[in-house]
Amino acid sequence: MTELAAVKAALRTQAVETPSWAYGNSGTRFKVFAQPGVPRDPFEKLDDAAKVHEFTGAAPTVALHIPWDRVDDYAALAKHAEERGLKLGAINSNTFQDDDYKLGSICHPDAAVRRKAVGHLLECVDIMDATGSKDLKLWFADGTNYPGQDDIRARQDRLAEGLAQVYERLGDDQRMLLEYKFFEPAFYATDVPDWGTAYAHCLKLGPKAQVVVDTGHHAPGTNIEFIVATLLREGKLGAFDFNSRFYADDDLMVGAADPFQLFRIMYEVIRGGGFTSDVAFMLDQCHNIEAKIPAIIRSVMNVQEATAKALLVDRDALGAAQRAGDVLAANAVLMDAYNTDVRPVVAEVREELGLDADPIAAYHRSGWAQKIAAEQVGASERQCAGGSEGLRPPPRLRIAAHSPWA
Amino acid sequence: MTELAAVKAALRTQAVETPSWAYGNSGTRFKVFAQPGVPRDPFEKLDDAAKVHEFTGAAPTVALHIPWDRVDDYAALAKHAEERGLKLGAINSNTFQDDDYKLGSICHPDAAVRRKAVGHLLECVDIMDATGSKDLKLWFADGTNYPGQDDIRARQDRLAEGLAQVYERLGDDQRMLLEYKFFEPAFYATDVPDWGTAYAHCLKLGPKAQVVVDTGHHAPGTNIEFIVATLLREGKLGAFDFNSRFYADDDLMVGAADPFQLFRIMYEVIRGGGFTSDVAFMLDQCHNIEAKIPAIIRSVMNVQEATAKALLVDRDALGAAQRAGDVLAANAVLMDAYNTDVRPVVAEVREELGLDADPIAAYHRSGWAQKIAAEQVGASERQCAGGSEGLRPPPRLRIAAHSPWA
Amino acid sequence: MTELAAVKAALRTQAVETPSWAYGNSGTRFKVFAQPGVPRDPFEKLDDAAKVHEFTGAAPTVALHIPWDRVDDYAALAKHAEERGLKLGAINSNTFQDDDYKLGSICHPDAAVRRKAVGHLLECVDIMDATGSKDLKLWFADGTNYPGQDDIRARQDRLAEGLAQVYERLGDDQRMLLEYKFFEPAFYATDVPDWGTAYAHCLKLGPKAQVVVDTGHHAPGTNIEFIVATLLREGKLGAFDFNSRFYADDDLMVGAADPFQLFRIMYEVIRGGGFTSDVAFMLDQCHNIEAKIPAIIRSVMNVQEATAKALLVDRDALGAAQRAGDVLAANAVLMDAYNTDVRPVVAEVREELGLDADPIAAYHRSGWAQKIAAEQVGASERQCAGGSEGLRPPPRLRIAAHSPWA
Amino acid sequence: MTELAAVKAALRTQAVETPSWAYGNSGTRFKVFAQPGVPRDPFEKLDDAAKVHEFTGAAPTVALHIPWDRVDDYAALAKHAEERGLKLGAINSNTFQDDDYKLGSICHPDAAVRRKAVGHLLECVDIMDATGSKDLKLWFADGTNYPGQDDIRARQDRLAEGLAQVYERLGDDQRMLLEYKFFEPAFYATDVPDWGTAYAHCLKLGPKAQVVVDTGHHAPGTNIEFIVATLLREGKLGAFDFNSRFYADDDLMVGAADPFQLFRIMYEVIRGGGFTSDVAFMLDQCHNIEAKIPAIIRSVMNVQEATAKALLVDRDALGAAQRAGDVLAANAVLMDAYNTDVRPVVAEVREELGLDADPIAAYHRSGWAQKIAAEQVGASERQCAGGSEGLRPPPRLRIAAHSPWA
Repeated sequence: MTELAAVKAALRTQAVETPSWAYGNSGTRFKVFAQPGVPRDPFEKLDDAAKVHEFTGAAPTVALHIPWDRVDDYAALAKHAEERGLKLGAINSNTFQDDDYKLGSICHPDAAVRRKAVGHLLECVDIMDATGSKDLKLWFADGTNYPGQDDIRARQDRLAEGLAQVYERLGDDQRMLLEYKFFEPAFYATDVPDWGTAYAHCLKLGPKAQVVVDTGHHAPGTNIEFIVATLLREGKLGAFDFNSRFYADDDLMVGAADPFQLFRIMYEVIRGGGFTSDVAFMLDQCHNIEAKIPAIIRSVMNVQEATAKALLVDRDALGAAQRAGDVLAANAVLMDAYNTDVRPVVAEVREELGLDADPIAAYHRSGWAQKIAAEQVGASERQCAGGSEGLRPPPRLRIAAHSPWA
Repeated sequence: MTELAAVKAALRTQAVETPSWAYGNSGTRFKVFAQPGVPRDPFEKLDDAAKVHEFTGAAPTVALHIPWDRVDDYAALAKHAEERGLKLGAINSNTFQDDDYKLGSICHPDAAVRRKAVGHLLECVDIMDATGSKDLKLWFADGTNYPGQDDIRARQDRLAEGLAQVYERLGDDQRMLLEYKFFEPAFYATDVPDWGTAYAHCLKLGPKAQVVVDTGHHAPGTNIEFIVATLLREGKLGAFDFNSRFYADDDLMVGAADPFQLFRIMYEVIRGGGFTSDVAFMLDQCHNIEAKIPAIIRSVMNVQEATAKALLVDRDALGAAQRAGDVLAANAVLMDAYNTDVRPVVAEVREELGLDADPIAAYHRSGWAQKIAAEQVGASERQCAGGSEGLRPPPRLRIAAHSPWA
Repeated sequence: MTELAAVKAALRTQAVETPSWAYGNSGTRFKVFAQPGVPRDPFEKLDDAAKVHEFTGAAPTVALHIPWDRVDDYAALAKHAEERGLKLGAINSNTFQDDDYKLGSICHPDAAVRRKAVGHLLECVDIMDATGSKDLKLWFADGTNYPGQDDIRARQDRLAEGLAQVYERLGDDQRMLLEYKFFEPAFYATDVPDWGTAYAHCLKLGPKAQVVVDTGHHAPGTNIEFIVATLLREGKLGAFDFNSRFYADDDLMVGAADPFQLFRIMYEVIRGGGFTSDVAFMLDQCHNIEAKIPAIIRSVMNVQEATAKALLVDRDALGAAQRAGDVLAANAVLMDAYNTDVRPVVAEVREELGLDADPIAAYHRSGWAQKIAAEQVGASERQCAGGSEGLRPPPRLRIAAHSPWA
Repeated sequence: MTELAAVKAALRTQAVETPSWAYGNSGTRFKVFAQPGVPRDPFEKLDDAAKVHEFTGAAPTVALHIPWDRVDDYAALAKHAEERGLKLGAINSNTFQDDDYKLGSICHPDAAVRRKAVGHLLECVDIMDATGSKDLKLWFADGTNYPGQDDIRARQDRLAEGLAQVYERLGDDQRMLLEYKFFEPAFYATDVPDWGTAYAHCLKLGPKAQVVVDTGHHAPGTNIEFIVATLLREGKLGAFDFNSRFYADDDLMVGAADPFQLFRIMYEVIRGGGFTSDVAFMLDQCHNIEAKIPAIIRSVMNVQEATAKALLVDRDALGAAQRAGDVLAANAVLMDAYNTDVRPVVAEVREELGLDADPIAAYHRSGWAQKIAAEQVGASERQCAGGSEGLRPPPRLRIAAHSPWA
């Protein structure tokens, strides 16, 4: 097999999980700009996600978010997915949108709130059993806004205790993926603010606990690929939440702000064996002002292109230059791959899979955007008819009014 | 007059403007935690603001925000204020919460949207005429999220054109205060991202245009007191939006995150003559998880204490050490003032004004929090009875659901 | 002329000025790692610079640094340059390496130090007259390390006064280029910390004063291309000091840390007319651990490639998408150019100029590195023989032991 | 015992270790400004350190740096210390100033360099045996400047291997303290960039390996007290390197840039039991422009004052407010302690120890500064007479010409 063939073979295996909530409306604290045609329920989110997979061939799973994607019948939801060539992916918990969680969830000073939060997490594992999902993805908005507001160290004790209860509940094939975030919505101290904290907790919990790297959740200047390499070396990299940022947790399309960084991350993934392991590659983005489905398609393409470039690195030449201490030569080997225009290669992979070489153009030609915009007329009535308010999600336009995942 | 007497005399003149929207609910993009008793209309906001002034003696004016504080009869609103010992302060425009503003307001690529935005700003000047407000405070959420999204430079041309139209409309005693912000809600390029941009526009507009320094609107590490000193030197410092932050635009209580910085800022204000000029000292904060009225009282107190410390700096000794190039001695003079516990002095000033030495305790004893929480029962009915939907603001709990000013 | 021909024609005109000091040793505060063969005097620096121009065809001028490049006979130095196909470029002042400058230079509290500093700047203009250089590039290390150390505002007054004296001395065709820097070596307040400060001073000085954008001199997250666009719009962009950084003023090879940013900057340069104006494109880098001459060649190539991509942007398509408010389409137009592999185009330009397509390989084949390393044996003796200590620079290995320009 | 008595009793036990190198010259990459009277050898450094202890009563140990403090006879050095009321403290290694270390030390791609580096570390343990020092403090400048320069992950393997060899050599009462640093002198990837990396290595090494928190070694915005609390909870906080910063690793006097942060750190230390454990409190600062000995005295005082405030926190009231979820009340309890002027209390502690209430004034009165400045005349001669170049440190003025510890 030629080298290019190997690159293409690897690209054919690549799968990016898209998040159900990215298909819904999102915004900043200043305004949520509603978009026409956003899904009204989890089934419609899957319909949209199916389009992304249809045109990219690389987005076969969809992450769910509870309670936003709570349904009566998860088997029906899984079947809906399967009929569209999809599978249900990670279950994402939500312990930040109930009034009880104002001062935290599993780190809250009040034991009753902590119990409620743990109860929700256990419910998420129940749903995993029902959907066949293997991953429980945990992001906690827990933290404090003012020095002294709560006992930073006691909150760690509570966190450890709550996580242990959930960990115990996991099945043999299930994982707990713990996400960290530098700040927001807490503005003084966040309870899981960095990879070190997530790693320390996962280490104590056991092998089924791993760390999630959200590419937007770091302090300015942080070398994310170093963290990726380190976590892979420790066997503790569970998943990515891909997005990009110029400032804070901007949640822009992955690869849009710093494509070179994405390439470096993918290089460390490949170098560390993460590409062929069970590291999950997920998107977690907010398409506040751009059209959502094509933005997600573009994001999948960006991951593919960064991966193709990373696969193209001449690792023999790189290793030789590194061992020789030739700084410029080693850097040049890496840059040579980065500077290559890989779009033709990725297009070929698509065509070999029977797909259009240009997923964006194909999507636009498909008429899907027009169809869902048209169907949304009278949305609220149809949505209410679909189920009881308690079990079905709220109307499309209000789903994910605030960005679900940070 | 002894030195302490001079400090106290200066403190007695200090006035901090509180923003109407800080009395309403606010939150992050993840969640708005509603608080009991938040005002249902601009009149009730003034009632709350009156309490802050009643217990501090230092918050005599209230900034309004249009359209949130739009009323039928501004004379009635002004009278309502006056009856409570208040005056109406700056008029703050809002060009970020209409669907039309998704891609900007006065920088929008579409001339029709720009016209609408300018129209709103002109309406704000009309309201200034009605309320007797002297300051039009402008913050634009304008910007772009993705490279290439719009023409950065053309947006500056549009900005300049729009500002000029509004400037022309100002009365002789009216000012335009232009605020800058590093980022958010735009995540790639913000159209007024730094003091330099605001300054350059104000310079071209004329003497009635000045810059607003929001203490939370800077890149990490920015020396804000340098900007304050520079703008004062240029005669272009119009106002402060006070708040504090650990990360981005966290909008915490001023002085809560870095009290030493607030002291340094107030020192440069005093040194540059800003304390006795027409620089407006305003709060712009979001009390997402803490009780709002006491948080605002605390913020006013924090400004007072920082000011007291800054007034205590022995400027003769400081100047001598500076001229001698004695780094440690000069720093020590400044720190000597900062390390002084000025709370007794500020308390004395309050008592001399006939106020309680401890505004927070006095507020809690007053029963106001219980009263407004109780009155809010049945709020939506009362609110709807108060006026037509189009003219009266929406119910309290939805007012300022998203933080108005960044 | 076809589009590609236009791109190539533009590339042929591109000139990047290299700094004499980048050919000498540099390091961090921890260690200067000496490299074999670094130049022992300004003449040898020109010899090295000639190699960069020989292989790139795009580095025809060399910036000098006074006093490091002080010589007895500037006409001889200019002739030495000319014989190698070079011209002498900007004169860079140094007001930070004398013991007198511990607390500043033209902002120093002591008038005698300020006079000395201004005297040095005036001497630099004398040298400009002798060399025919048109640009006086000013970077001031001035600032303070501790709050209170000096009077921030008074330092601005002194700065303005000193700059005015130097501005007066400029000839009709000479410019003053004022550089700003976020921090370092001052760690509390820097006297020209941002573009706004530099701009405000240049504005008052007059049309011959313009701002220098050093790409490593900004706060984390700063949108540099916005500053570029703004300064061009104001007619105040005088020059670039190119380099790249991940953290602070790292002074890495331009384009090495964030090639996408360099592309965006070059796009705004082109869009704003800066490519065909008198904006000077200079390098200012420290090659602490990598071989210096090839690193500079690589840097010139990186600027060329970013420029080629920026020239390739389909501005008609971009404008159409921008006007339509199509966020994704507009971004895609920009990314389409960025994702193009322009190395073949740039190589063609070189070949059409009679150069090797691969400047790095050609340099390595040339044997220059071996030649200068060999000649350096006994360097100190030869250097001392070459001139008196007071007039000739110190031995090569000590030249620029500390990075000259930040 | 009254509460105040308890605070004073705690303060009397507080010890801050000062670093030998802070008494020598230091600077930035731009310039080292030499100061009169800086020590010419380790014995003179101890003389200076003795003055700091004499006037503060709180600086009884001095950290050494090898090779800068290498002497023939460590027993003589220890005796010199003891005669002045001092003990020798931590041994600090240096693997960054030999030419061999250009691309790293124990992470270097070349095994021979790694062996040399490990050899140096083992020599440091030998010196610990000779001096009776208990702590080996390790900071590695190791890292890379360019993507691709070396294999990030392989460097971790080498790091782990080298550390293990040194760990094995430690005696029963000896510790290895591993320091992390965000960046500098490496500008792309640092091999121990954050607490998580240091923690992960220490965990694998065993109980004698602990983490050093240098307060200047974090990304912008990092919540350092959270790290302190977390490491204490994990039993892995070994020591502090105190200093302060506004931007990067500015190495200013501790407490000078953000006194509130220092207070919060000391509060978490006390709350986590670190004040009465074996956590070492060390200074690591560069007094580039201010007089060194009084700057170190001031730094010790700043630590004392922050500690006094932290000890004053009413922890019962704080806990009650935290449990009640009263954000403002909890914050107010903390701020009440912070806003207290503790200088009188600390002065009383000094007087009860028979010291002057004002250490700075007492130092200035002592005439020490004049004495050492006078003695330095003819320094180079005396220094050369003192020992062979290989065994004795270089002349005072060149000692620590580059800041030793970051």
